[in-house]
Amino acid sequence: MTTPTSDETGPARADDAVVASAATVTAASTRTAPAAGAGLTRRALLVGVGAAGGAGAMFAAMGALGLAPESQDRNFAPPQRSDFSLTGRGAAKVVVLGAGVAGLTCAYELGKAGYDCTVLEASGRVGGRNLTLRAGDRLEELGGETQTAGFEEGVYFNAGAARIAPWMVTMDYCRELGVPVEIFVNNNASAYVYTRGMTAPARARTARADLYGYIGELLAKASNAGALNRRLTADDRERLEEFLRRFGDLGPDLAYRRDSRRRGFETYPGVGEGVSVGTASSLRDVLAAGTGRYVTMDFGYDQVMPMFQPVGGMDTITGALADAVGRDRIRTGTPVTGIKNLPDGVEVTHRDGAGTGVVRADYCVATLPPHLFARLPHNLGTPVTAALRTPVPVSAGKIGLEYGRRWWEIDDRIYGGATETDLDITHIWYPSYGFHSRGGLVVGYYNVDENADVYTGLSHRERRNRALTQGKKIHGEKYRAELRSSVSIAWGRQPYIEGGWASWPSFGSDYALLQRPAGRVYFAGDWLSHLTAWQAGAMESARRAVTDLHHRVLQTPS
Amino acid sequence: MTTPTSDETGPARADDAVVASAATVTAASTRTAPAAGAGLTRRALLVGVGAAGGAGAMFAAMGALGLAPESQDRNFAPPQRSDFSLTGRGAAKVVVLGAGVAGLTCAYELGKAGYDCTVLEASGRVGGRNLTLRAGDRLEELGGETQTAGFEEGVYFNAGAARIAPWMVTMDYCRELGVPVEIFVNNNASAYVYTRGMTAPARARTARADLYGYIGELLAKASNAGALNRRLTADDRERLEEFLRRFGDLGPDLAYRRDSRRRGFETYPGVGEGVSVGTASSLRDVLAAGTGRYVTMDFGYDQVMPMFQPVGGMDTITGALADAVGRDRIRTGTPVTGIKNLPDGVEVTHRDGAGTGVVRADYCVATLPPHLFARLPHNLGTPVTAALRTPVPVSAGKIGLEYGRRWWEIDDRIYGGATETDLDITHIWYPSYGFHSRGGLVVGYYNVDENADVYTGLSHRERRNRALTQGKKIHGEKYRAELRSSVSIAWGRQPYIEGGWASWPSFGSDYALLQRPAGRVYFAGDWLSHLTAWQAGAMESARRAVTDLHHRVLQTPS
Repeated sequence: MTTPTSDETGPARADDAVVASAATVTAASTRTAPAAGAGLTRRALLVGVGAAGGAGAMFAAMGALGLAPESQDRNFAPPQRSDFSLTGRGAAKVVVLGAGVAGLTCAYELGKAGYDCTVLEASGRVGGRNLTLRAGDRLEELGGETQTAGFEEGVYFNAGAARIAPWMVTMDYCRELGVPVEIFVNNNASAYVYTRGMTAPARARTARADLYGYIGELLAKASNAGALNRRLTADDRERLEEFLRRFGDLGPDLAYRRDSRRRGFETYPGVGEGVSVGTASSLRDVLAAGTGRYVTMDFGYDQVMPMFQPVGGMDTITGALADAVGRDRIRTGTPVTGIKNLPDGVEVTHRDGAGTGVVRADYCVATLPPHLFARLPHNLGTPVTAALRTPVPVSAGKIGLEYGRRWWEIDDRIYGGATETDLDITHIWYPSYGFHSRGGLVVGYYNVDENADVYTGLSHRERRNRALTQGKKIHGEKYRAELRSSVSIAWGRQPYIEGGWASWPSFGSDYALLQRPAGRVYFAGDWLSHLTAWQAGAMESARRAVTDLHHRVLQTPS
Repeated sequence: MTTPTSDETGPARADDAVVASAATVTAASTRTAPAAGAGLTRRALLVGVGAAGGAGAMFAAMGALGLAPESQDRNFAPPQRSDFSLTGRGAAKVVVLGAGVAGLTCAYELGKAGYDCTVLEASGRVGGRNLTLRAGDRLEELGGETQTAGFEEGVYFNAGAARIAPWMVTMDYCRELGVPVEIFVNNNASAYVYTRGMTAPARARTARADLYGYIGELLAKASNAGALNRRLTADDRERLEEFLRRFGDLGPDLAYRRDSRRRGFETYPGVGEGVSVGTASSLRDVLAAGTGRYVTMDFGYDQVMPMFQPVGGMDTITGALADAVGRDRIRTGTPVTGIKNLPDGVEVTHRDGAGTGVVRADYCVATLPPHLFARLPHNLGTPVTAALRTPVPVSAGKIGLEYGRRWWEIDDRIYGGATETDLDITHIWYPSYGFHSRGGLVVGYYNVDENADVYTGLSHRERRNRALTQGKKIHGEKYRAELRSSVSIAWGRQPYIEGGWASWPSFGSDYALLQRPAGRVYFAGDWLSHLTAWQAGAMESARRAVTDLHHRVLQTPS
């Protein structure tokens, strides 16, 4: 028999790589408010207020300026400053480990309620697996190689998280933070499918028309021959046939119209009636081509069209979160070296530019990748270490290929979406922004597991050459000849991240354990949600952690 | 038995309503170049050059400024100024009737080659069925009623043409004219389907999951029971089953998982695993609901995702065309009253603000709606009149409903796309622009034929009330309560247009006759293409007409 079934079960389909890297501490946090000069813009003023007083102060100021964000969605009651006024107490000090999506969301929500947050981030930047590369950006890898993006102005590469489903909380944060969104094309009928069982790539629309046509025909004819009579009434069968005629584009004889216009055209209709791409292969050849997997690619609840992306790059989200938190509350380049519960607080030791240091706080929220956390000295107990070791890091990689000419639009009429293949590149993604502009960036592979391992082991030059050799099978020589620049990422070789995401073999007792704090240390991250590898998972987990923390603070006798 | 089959056959599915209205003449065309002031922008300069010298002069200037447009696509060789230099002659004078998409495209292409064009337009504006309404725009109807759009700033309503498929020549013109495009969501899994056979609306994703699940199950089980053994080998059947498991989300027993995650969630997964929308109804109930028609809605070659729209409104295209032609070459408010072939030219009589007038030219391209052209006095012969009467005007209408709150995004998580119904409103379209902004505009109906006739016969107030009553069945009381303003259009009551589009009963000898000139009069319009009701049809037809005209000019002894 064959492979499993539901495309939604098992490890999440690789996506919006997210969250925190490692983190650290710093002895004291000094905050200086920027001088409010004459030409200060409203936004600069708010950033200044945020820097001086954190997100809580900023949102108070926004309210005063008539800029208060839309209220949160219905199912989440964020920590509130008024809770503290009601109990007559001040908010606590919290150290957040990691300035990825989970860490930033924690600090953002706690900050709105007046908590005094410090965010420690091991790497030199915020965002974690939300990473957008632009001209001049440097990308270091464990093992030594450093690339510099040589893109033209206006071209960017979402090297990690790249798409958002409309039901995800990520959309709420975009709305609340004023991050404009646009459509991400997750399925394009004009893109190609290509398997090693095919002599040439076919348009996705053609592959779909043929599969639907033949299965429509098979079922309509089986019904007509009486095979469904025991299960369906005559009325049901008539309705079924009506549907199948539409679904499969069947002719009067219930056979698939093998010259269906749905297959596409060499020359589309205009003054003339058009020239079709030709007649479908036999059912047997269509099945042997093995394109079914790609035709059903966007059926999963997290992949259905339309999907979204922030205008200008995914890091617009983490940038807006970091601004709202207050940039001076975030200490980059500060890897954590140890985490200790104390009787009345937490103590986090770290390295930083000055050597080493210690941060003490009332509580800690740790958003480190679990497999990296497990290696750190801590006093949270053996079961915690064991639980942190349970989720399995998954390999994932991408390459951005920049071209000076948008040949995929001009020559191939592909505007966004993906070509799906069974080659080791898995997909070729075409950009969902900058339509008709001069150049643009194609994602030459986005692969996971074994396919990603292959590329992870290569130098950038080797990855690029391999990706070009594969892509040429679909797009021909221009795919290599017209390349302008490229950057590749192997998430397993990203410092303080070391993986695309971490996947639970099952959501069992270890998952449950880490939903609860270990002493004064809370855990958060996409890996602590059922939306592994999605930014929304990191955000949902952050909301859970800060809600629990806040309830505890309010219930603790002062 | 049941209804026909292919959704692409028969009259085109109502769309990008286009093209010309009636047109006219004016005695002489005076052109004044604007003074080139100090602060003149590059664009203003070009518009000035265009106004003074037409598109040919403008494109020469653009070349000099390094702004020459991308070359045309491969299959079209436009009329060229160099053709005239080669033959040592000057270009001819052409009068174009109608400033819709066809007329403007003719004048644009002829202008680039140096032809001296005058465009006569009966109505007070350019664009024809490319019509975008914004705050303050007035909409007159035959029969008396005049509406004024009361929209807020930034809200617009594409009352006619609204979407573009990526293979269409419309995209080439957007690229060439520098009109930015963005994605139009033509299918949204989060939108609803609602038929009178259903007790409540269902999300499109749910309806699709159930239909695909059950047909996958029926076919997999029929195959398993041996019903396909005569047609398929064991290998084929195994491949088919593998596909059907994915396609239908079938369980190990080949039954549709009636709690499939594809059906959607009441609460989507987050920290918890989510709460599903519930279990599928029986196959019999799913078939009886009659949603199949809507699930296959975007299968046609002209409807497949992704589709596109110009940023800021569809009339950006006709505005750019009119600018390139030169606004002073276009005479609005000038209805044609007669067309006469002369031995050495054409004579067009018209009304205008000053009374009546006559335009003489070497050639004429007429882009009037055929049924209106047929009523005009002309000397083109009886077969021409008969042919013009053959295409049948189709009724079409839309209503724009403006809301101060984007409840469809905030409450329903619907970002663009359409709810499909069997009510007389047919669709509810949600906007594909301005996501997350304060307010927005929903298209409360877009209907054709009998459904459009019903609304055409009503006052605007009655149309609005009827549309609200229907839409409430899907969206509840807020659909009525939160309405801010509305505008409706009945294309059959638009002066000088009088129809959504005109549809050929068959593409026979009448169609062929009008592809050829009658003397010195050429015909063009979407109705003279196989892309009826699409702007691309008007453009393709215009290209055919100007190519024929140009070849003739070059072959005529001078």
